Amino acid sequence: MANPLVLRRPVTRMTERGFETVEDAVAVEGALEIRVGGQTLSVTLRTPGHDPELGLGFLASEGLIARREDVADLSVVAADCADESDRLEVTLAPSVVVDWSRFERHFAATAACGLCGRAHLDSLRAGLRPMPAEARVDAQALADLPARLRERQEAFVATGGLHAAAYCDADLALQALREDVGRHNAVDKIAGGLLERGRYPANEGVLWVSGRAGAEIVLKAARARIPVLAAVGAPSSLAIELAESAAMTLVGFLREGRMNVYAGRERLR
Amino acid sequence: MANPLVLRRPVTRMTERGFETVEDAVAVEGALEIRVGGQTLSVTLRTPGHDPELGLGFLASEGLIARREDVADLSVVAADCADESDRLEVTLAPSVVVDWSRFERHFAATAACGLCGRAHLDSLRAGLRPMPAEARVDAQALADLPARLRERQEAFVATGGLHAAAYCDADLALQALREDVGRHNAVDKIAGGLLERGRYPANEGVLWVSGRAGAEIVLKAARARIPVLAAVGAPSSLAIELAESAAMTLVGFLREGRMNVYAGRERLR
Repeated sequence: MANPLVLRRPVTRMTERGFETVEDAVAVEGALEIRVGGQTLSVTLRTPGHDPELGLGFLASEGLIARREDVADLSVVAADCADESDRLEVTLAPSVVVDWSRFERHFAATAACGLCGRAHLDSLRAGLRPMPAEARVDAQALADLPARLRERQEAFVATGGLHAAAYCDADLALQALREDVGRHNAVDKIAGGLLERGRYPANEGVLWVSGRAGAEIVLKAARARIPVLAAVGAPSSLAIELAESAAMTLVGFLREGRMNVYAGRERLR
Repeated sequence: MANPLVLRRPVTRMTERGFETVEDAVAVEGALEIRVGGQTLSVTLRTPGHDPELGLGFLASEGLIARREDVADLSVVAADCADESDRLEVTLAPSVVVDWSRFERHFAATAACGLCGRAHLDSLRAGLRPMPAEARVDAQALADLPARLRERQEAFVATGGLHAAAYCDADLALQALREDVGRHNAVDKIAGGLLERGRYPANEGVLWVSGRAGAEIVLKAARARIPVLAAVGAPSSLAIELAESAAMTLVGFLREGRMNVYAGRERLR
């Protein structure tokens, strides 16, 4: 079966032997407009698929909803033509009150996407509640995770163009793996999946990400109350600071049985 | 001399031999609030340094300014304490009229940062003017670029945690290389540097990025009128579409003398 995350198309390859035309696999990227009550909240470029999870996770990460029941209706409307975005139409439950003024912003940021407009770091830190200390994980099982996950990243293997995020429970059993052109989207899809299964906030388990761990990924994990964040790549200084503020375990460079522990070492058995 | 992009700190490393504490180098990430006329436009998480370039490039990418003279004054105000952002205060020239309504948005997007709020793809495409066909580059010189650039990415080598972007002129001579925790920031710093040197729009040369080429990087290159975009990583489907719309040359997987040409093959000699 064709992989819907992947588009096959001809590409001109240059090697030592010169140019040749071959078929290549490219990661599909498309726009999704997330609308709440008919109002556009966000237009995000994402890998199509799992759009309801992406929308739910995005709304939860932004603090608009806290449980599946906060959403009365959710529907995906595919674009009619190539120049239109797909749309996700969300109707919140009548009990959910949105403070729209919180979301009035002038600009989108660049690296910091989800952070922009929430101007000051102290307010970021103030929102971080410490993760449960008892949510421990086995260090060796964590070290073994990359090999188990690699087999599952089908579209990445095909295209080299996707980020991935995964959620494992306290015993490191894989619960969900999602791939996306955007790292934040992959994490939002994971959060949305937890929400759909009534597991949000998680209060246990591990969020694994294929790339680097910046501050925003730490904030998304903190919001979902996932006590361990493990990244294949490097963390930033601010990611470490925020993880410490949230008493979160932050692991970087998790690969081939090795890892660096930047915060919350006591949670690893 | 200490590298200001890098923070040294202890980290617990787990290997086959167990846990040990070693000193590690971490990429510095900090918030920068970009203000225009006293109004907050964006709070971005970035690697400190080259903040005026970042601000100029960001404003140019967003279409607020088109040349250095559009900015009357630019000053960086360092944060007083750890909980505050650094600030970049921009005063536009009196002749520059900003249509603030264009920037009224509710949310920041996630993957698509700079795209959010500009809802529809047709309007994105409509803004793309074809790149000059005569701005050719030598394919072999382009293939040799990665080795030359690798020596220059000091902070990445130290931390593994940074993206990089570079601008080379039509003869592939390196004009600028910038590193940042955010890929978009690195590209904005390059655009801002071109602006400072009166080379914006560029109308020639190559924008190189260390990672993947998503749609937003193509849009930033198109705005700066850099006719060739070369990425170490994979492009997305939408990046290819937009590059084709802009008659831009899009190269992916540029490494070790090899490359894939996704669009604008005719520009490579």
